[in-house]
Amino acid sequence: MTKILVVYSGGLDSFTLVNEAIRSENEILTLSFDYGQKHRKELSFVERFCLKESIEYKIVDVSSIKELFQGSSITDEIDIPKGHYEDDSMKSTVVPNRNMILISLALGYAVTKEVEEVWFGAHAGDHAIYPDCRPEFVEKMDAVAKIANYSPIAVKAPYISMSKSEILAIGLEMKLDYSLTWTCYEGKDLACGECGACHERLESFAANNAIDPLEYL
Amino acid sequence: MTKILVVYSGGLDSFTLVNEAIRSENEILTLSFDYGQKHRKELSFVERFCLKESIEYKIVDVSSIKELFQGSSITDEIDIPKGHYEDDSMKSTVVPNRNMILISLALGYAVTKEVEEVWFGAHAGDHAIYPDCRPEFVEKMDAVAKIANYSPIAVKAPYISMSKSEILAIGLEMKLDYSLTWTCYEGKDLACGECGACHERLESFAANNAIDPLEYL
Repeated sequence: MTKILVVYSGGLDSFTLVNEAIRSENEILTLSFDYGQKHRKELSFVERFCLKESIEYKIVDVSSIKELFQGSSITDEIDIPKGHYEDDSMKSTVVPNRNMILISLALGYAVTKEVEEVWFGAHAGDHAIYPDCRPEFVEKMDAVAKIANYSPIAVKAPYISMSKSEILAIGLEMKLDYSLTWTCYEGKDLACGECGACHERLESFAANNAIDPLEYL
Repeated sequence: MTKILVVYSGGLDSFTLVNEAIRSENEILTLSFDYGQKHRKELSFVERFCLKESIEYKIVDVSSIKELFQGSSITDEIDIPKGHYEDDSMKSTVVPNRNMILISLALGYAVTKEVEEVWFGAHAGDHAIYPDCRPEFVEKMDAVAKIANYSPIAVKAPYISMSKSEILAIGLEMKLDYSLTWTCYEGKDLACGECGACHERLESFAANNAIDPLEYL
């Protein structure tokens, strides 16, 4: 029995990961961040699911950090680009050093909660544009997490070599209800269907011959 | 000419480091954090010095992160222990994963500001109780900072193998005015003279046959 903290955004990948963690029969808690993202709506999905499943969860507002960054369409008054992750325009969705910051905070919380492993949902589809979603990043964060506090903590990204379609296949096999997730970078009433995140999600459902239960504009 | 971001707490070590950086004739800016420390008074020393020297500085309030930690006398309603850093009681002054969190935030800011090196003032006197002030920690943070964003950033702790006395010797040689620094963990009008931080500071002045210009209770 291992005590695991899952960094849970409310999106498809981390939702699947939380569900895998629950089924692993380890002790699970989750941590989520308001870091100033326009799609902070995703956090209401976290809350709804964790309450439903009686999982210990924490949502922390660290949105003041956004004044350290400029030029990310995720946190600034810049339009979210339409298109696919491979497109060059998609680089505006990078939040500088985001994963290192969020994992560092998760590790601080992990010390307080005596957690042994921190899991997060980075996957292969993200590598193209996000340097902090690569296997090398996870390895190096794991190395520093092992020595930065009195007790070593492991950092794991179980989906790091999988595509979003493959992650979704795992979740569909578990019969997960993906209406309990939010992916769109625009935090509006309905998913836009046009941003990189929506495109990748819709293509993943199509690749699995499945219907996305979310409504789109 | 290198663009350097110095993590500047307002204390003796980082103050000396900022002054060394200024004299190095590189391009310098500083970043400081309100992370909920009782001695946030140190930040007013940052502001005063940076205004005086016309250095670009930023102080960011990330105090909401303190709800992720419990049991640190630095951020919680727990008495700051009296004594020396070697004392076991001093462990209550550890803020979980603090340096990784603050350096991660500094790296995010460094990306926005196109900084090439992030410096911070960890030194050998801290090793005894703070795992994130050891050379191994700096090496591993440097390794991850090299690959976590589009451009590599170096993480350096130039004083990592020096004692506070040796750092002070450098500053006294530069004729720095240490009345422009704050060290005491209690954020009161006068330095307490009894916490681990005050003890180490006073011993460093004594070892250099110098008088601390700060007033003590």
